[in-house]
Amino acid sequence: MLFFTQCFGAVLDLIHLRFQHYKAKRVFSAAGQLVCVVNPTHSLKYAPTRCAAVQASTEQGILPPCHHHEVVHDPQLVPCTCPLFSCPWEGHLEVVVSHLRQTHRINILQGAEIVFLATDMHLPAPTDWIIMHSCLGHQFLLVLRKQEKHEGHPQFFATMMLIGTPTQANNFTYRLELNRNQRRLKWEATPRSILECVDSVISDGDCLVLNTSLAQLFSDNGSLAIGIAITTSKVHSSEAEM
Amino acid sequence: MLFFTQCFGAVLDLIHLRFQHYKAKRVFSAAGQLVCVVNPTHSLKYAPTRCAAVQASTEQGILPPCHHHEVVHDPQLVPCTCPLFSCPWEGHLEVVVSHLRQTHRINILQGAEIVFLATDMHLPAPTDWIIMHSCLGHQFLLVLRKQEKHEGHPQFFATMMLIGTPTQANNFTYRLELNRNQRRLKWEATPRSILECVDSVISDGDCLVLNTSLAQLFSDNGSLAIGIAITTSKVHSSEAEM
Repeated sequence: MLFFTQCFGAVLDLIHLRFQHYKAKRVFSAAGQLVCVVNPTHSLKYAPTRCAAVQASTEQGILPPCHHHEVVHDPQLVPCTCPLFSCPWEGHLEVVVSHLRQTHRINILQGAEIVFLATDMHLPAPTDWIIMHSCLGHQFLLVLRKQEKHEGHPQFFATMMLIGTPTQANNFTYRLELNRNQRRLKWEATPRSILECVDSVISDGDCLVLNTSLAQLFSDNGSLAIGIAITTSKVHSSEAEM
Repeated sequence: MLFFTQCFGAVLDLIHLRFQHYKAKRVFSAAGQLVCVVNPTHSLKYAPTRCAAVQASTEQGILPPCHHHEVVHDPQLVPCTCPLFSCPWEGHLEVVVSHLRQTHRINILQGAEIVFLATDMHLPAPTDWIIMHSCLGHQFLLVLRKQEKHEGHPQFFATMMLIGTPTQANNFTYRLELNRNQRRLKWEATPRSILECVDSVISDGDCLVLNTSLAQLFSDNGSLAIGIAITTSKVHSSEAEM
């Protein structure tokens, strides 16, 4: 009996995934891009944030687990950088990806341009949508977060972090693009290094920021599609080019 | 003596304008685009907004002076659409531009692509920066507003309205672009008609929205440069194109 119940559950899951993928393909039918359906995770590690904890431990003279805007020149032990959990893991930068995949079950996608389809945007804050993106010989972490900076007014924050050092991150540009309902919003920036705190990038607002009404305009049936592209060229040197 | 004081004042104004223009040229030195320096105006007509007043008068059965999402098919008298003042003027749509220029001293610029350089971004909310833009045989009103939706947290809202009917507005696409400090933010949308309320467009958040920290990252010495482009093509029909 238990076997049949499990089988039925698996079939339902498959139908749900098929439906999500169909929905994504409908949104990006002409694009021919790889669409990744990303389900939300209710974050377990807010209040106090990791960065607040870091600040407290720095004040007490304890080695901080998260270096904000600090360059790590040599391969050293780094803490787990998963934005979802306060994880005690430490390891070399080279094994962060396998830790995130194996322990935190974060999916990884290949390709220069992909579409990140975040489902269930209506879920209450705080909620995160996370994937890793493998591209140009490096891995990136894309974080979309729903958070209330002002009570009762949730906002969406999206950023991309390189799983590498800040020096390596400076060689890339990432682009996030929303396109629906006769509106288009593009954000281009240099990715931050995963050694910097994703929490501080989001609390500084130095990322793509969407209020709820804009997120609704860009979403289709509760799902938000974000086009992602990564390039190596330093296009920003000509800042005047508009 | 009065003559010399006035002369001295005029010379100081010229030096100030020259400095602003030099600053704008420095930011967009390579672009070769027309740069318009726009000084702020502290808005005099908030709380209650015109739309709130409209709602109140509609409830009382009085003809509303501002039609939200309503199409005006025939040339009729329209109220003054200046976002700065509660102005009792009414006239035909064709003479709105000359009213805005003559009575409210709003400048008008020619060209398909211009740079709007808003000065003194640090001024407290509510503040507006406004110009008219003449392009493709039509006139558009660009409004940048600093407003506190949540107390103590001012945000910047930028939108473009066609001085024409909603049907005419549907033929255009406007683009606002910020580009500085290795970050680029682009907003593309169909302009709203001036017959809709600029206050409701901004309160709905259906426009380019910047928090204070992003505005600081994009601004240079207290001035924010916004690249503006208007096209006629209906590029949004292919929504999947990312």
